[in-house]
Amino acid sequence: MNDPAAELLIPHRFRASGVKAGIKPSGGDDLAVLAASAPCAAAGTFTTNRVCAAPVKWCRGLLPAEDILAVVVNSGNANAATGEPGLANARQTAVHAAELLGCRPEQVLVASTGVIGHQLPMPKVKAGLAAAVASLSDQPEAFQAAARSVMTTDTRPKILSERRAIAGQDATLLGIAKGAAMIGPRMATMLAFLLTDAPVRSHDLRAILADAVDSSFNCLSVEGHASTNDTVLLLSSAAGPAAPLSGSDLAEFASMVGSACETLARAIADDGEGSTHFITIDVEACRTTADARAIARCVAESALVKTAIHGADPNWGRIVSAAGYAGVDFREEELSLWINEVPVYREGSPAAFDEQTLSASIRSRRPVDLRLTLGSGDASARFWTCDLTAEYVRLNADYTT
Amino acid sequence: MNDPAAELLIPHRFRASGVKAGIKPSGGDDLAVLAASAPCAAAGTFTTNRVCAAPVKWCRGLLPAEDILAVVVNSGNANAATGEPGLANARQTAVHAAELLGCRPEQVLVASTGVIGHQLPMPKVKAGLAAAVASLSDQPEAFQAAARSVMTTDTRPKILSERRAIAGQDATLLGIAKGAAMIGPRMATMLAFLLTDAPVRSHDLRAILADAVDSSFNCLSVEGHASTNDTVLLLSSAAGPAAPLSGSDLAEFASMVGSACETLARAIADDGEGSTHFITIDVEACRTTADARAIARCVAESALVKTAIHGADPNWGRIVSAAGYAGVDFREEELSLWINEVPVYREGSPAAFDEQTLSASIRSRRPVDLRLTLGSGDASARFWTCDLTAEYVRLNADYTT
Repeated sequence: MNDPAAELLIPHRFRASGVKAGIKPSGGDDLAVLAASAPCAAAGTFTTNRVCAAPVKWCRGLLPAEDILAVVVNSGNANAATGEPGLANARQTAVHAAELLGCRPEQVLVASTGVIGHQLPMPKVKAGLAAAVASLSDQPEAFQAAARSVMTTDTRPKILSERRAIAGQDATLLGIAKGAAMIGPRMATMLAFLLTDAPVRSHDLRAILADAVDSSFNCLSVEGHASTNDTVLLLSSAAGPAAPLSGSDLAEFASMVGSACETLARAIADDGEGSTHFITIDVEACRTTADARAIARCVAESALVKTAIHGADPNWGRIVSAAGYAGVDFREEELSLWINEVPVYREGSPAAFDEQTLSASIRSRRPVDLRLTLGSGDASARFWTCDLTAEYVRLNADYTT
Repeated sequence: MNDPAAELLIPHRFRASGVKAGIKPSGGDDLAVLAASAPCAAAGTFTTNRVCAAPVKWCRGLLPAEDILAVVVNSGNANAATGEPGLANARQTAVHAAELLGCRPEQVLVASTGVIGHQLPMPKVKAGLAAAVASLSDQPEAFQAAARSVMTTDTRPKILSERRAIAGQDATLLGIAKGAAMIGPRMATMLAFLLTDAPVRSHDLRAILADAVDSSFNCLSVEGHASTNDTVLLLSSAAGPAAPLSGSDLAEFASMVGSACETLARAIADDGEGSTHFITIDVEACRTTADARAIARCVAESALVKTAIHGADPNWGRIVSAAGYAGVDFREEELSLWINEVPVYREGSPAAFDEQTLSASIRSRRPVDLRLTLGSGDASARFWTCDLTAEYVRLNADYTT
């Protein structure tokens, strides 16, 4: 993540804003607009949930595209499981924004996050949009405001930027994400918006984004509950007349996108609801990447593993037993486990270690590193998660309304 | 479950005992023996975890069998992930018991539950076995002691008995189970021991047990973590000279076993670690039973659903979104949901309901009933689980040792 004091780099031809539209009961910032001054190539990845939000349906119908001009994001209301009226409200949000921006509704992407099953308060959305479009700016503060406006239970905004010289020109990438709960893998698990001025065509954006999401947001879990609203969008404002990137230049751009997605994914796990420990899980020497990810996901989503880490308890039996029910065929005698580099289980047998020293290391180190190895092959995976705390329970047992 | 005041019916030719062997740090009862005076037909189902306990390996190698004479169960130590010394200790437990009972070690089944990764304290096991065999009795109090001795974090023993007239004779079935955490489906998810004097052959016992487990213990989840030690054993003490049951008599016996397994499975969910709500999930009108169970499992294992129920929050969006990521292909427009019989979501759209009344009903009713219907077919499934509480986190974040 960017050091808050460091300069935030803004890609060319993008403006942003974030305002209080009154959608959140708390009265916080809840409506963000990201707008481009030239049509953008754009691609997206979305939740694989069969129950998916109206804005996801709207975006899926439009992408990939070469003529996107804006993204409107509200927090406080997910516009999910809202039936036909919800779809009409997602479209109407794009219609209002298009009127204000002087473009077609089909050039406006929308995203929502918040409570499921309530209709969007459209008068508030409409008034908020007018204020947000009026305050669009290309200054860093405007993008910071947008990053704040997409937050729900996030304790801090998640925003980064990077600039690299690609094909002899500066290419800037700015990324914003939100997410603290209802975070499970198997899709793009939250909202993230990536803006760039590198000249990349939409079908290249789509392939690059799919790859980047696969090893970042799809390797992330807070409690494993796949949201209805997960959306990752990647927009390039320089897709028009400039020669699009190709070959090694495109690979360099892909590397920048991959790095940004990984940093944002880590930031989400690191800010998991109620969490006190950030956890990295490496699974190595598997037959396939899918096998390694399946084991990592089972460990990441085990309430018993997550509570043990919360208690700084080197109760490694919970970790190896979680690996054992991932549906991956392996022999117990090939499994080994390290916690913060201390070997605790070697090829199917307990290893001697000092429990108090390791407990102290779990308590103080961030992230806590869990490393599992099989003896099956060369494939590996890295996963990010957080611990499970009484505070998570308290946050999510509170009444919705 | 049996009313504690009601008479516990003991099947012929079985004795039991439960003693303090000193395996549990708490000093509670921790060693149970179930013994038969005649060789039993026996069958078992076991965890599908790739990391499985030494006693599971011992039993798997023996069953089904026609000559089982005893089951030895310890709590406080799982004898799992213990390598070759763990296997030797499981075998040695059977050897000690066989010496005391005057039979071969291969006639003794063993089961363990407790912390993973520690070697069994064999001097304590040996001394405990001597005390347990010396106190074997066919009185109800002895079976109650055995039920207490298999508990770990269970708050109450789980024991039942039933007697039916089958093939013109009384057949009695007694069941004991334990389990409060590390409870996930996909296998027999805990320890349970079923004893009967109905004359049934071991291969019939095996088929009947597999069916019964499939729709009882495999439809049960506390937090979805599949244990390394899950074991369900079914022993018949009347398999020898008597004519074995067949046809409708065998079906009647199967019905008695199915009913006992369901009651014990419900009792485990009802006593989930730290839980304050017991939850039943019905999923109906699916294409296949596997589809219905996949959806029920996702709902049962969602931390967001479980915390919402804990908070008596009718936040139904969490339930329908959990259904949506089960990997089952359905259209949102065919999905409906009832909470305690109140329709909250009808064919893809929110239904109006009184939130405060429903919240009060969630708070007070036991079990809380969640019913989901698709429009895909005739298959259905029923699942049992409990809520997720700060007390669960506290219990599992405490240091192992």
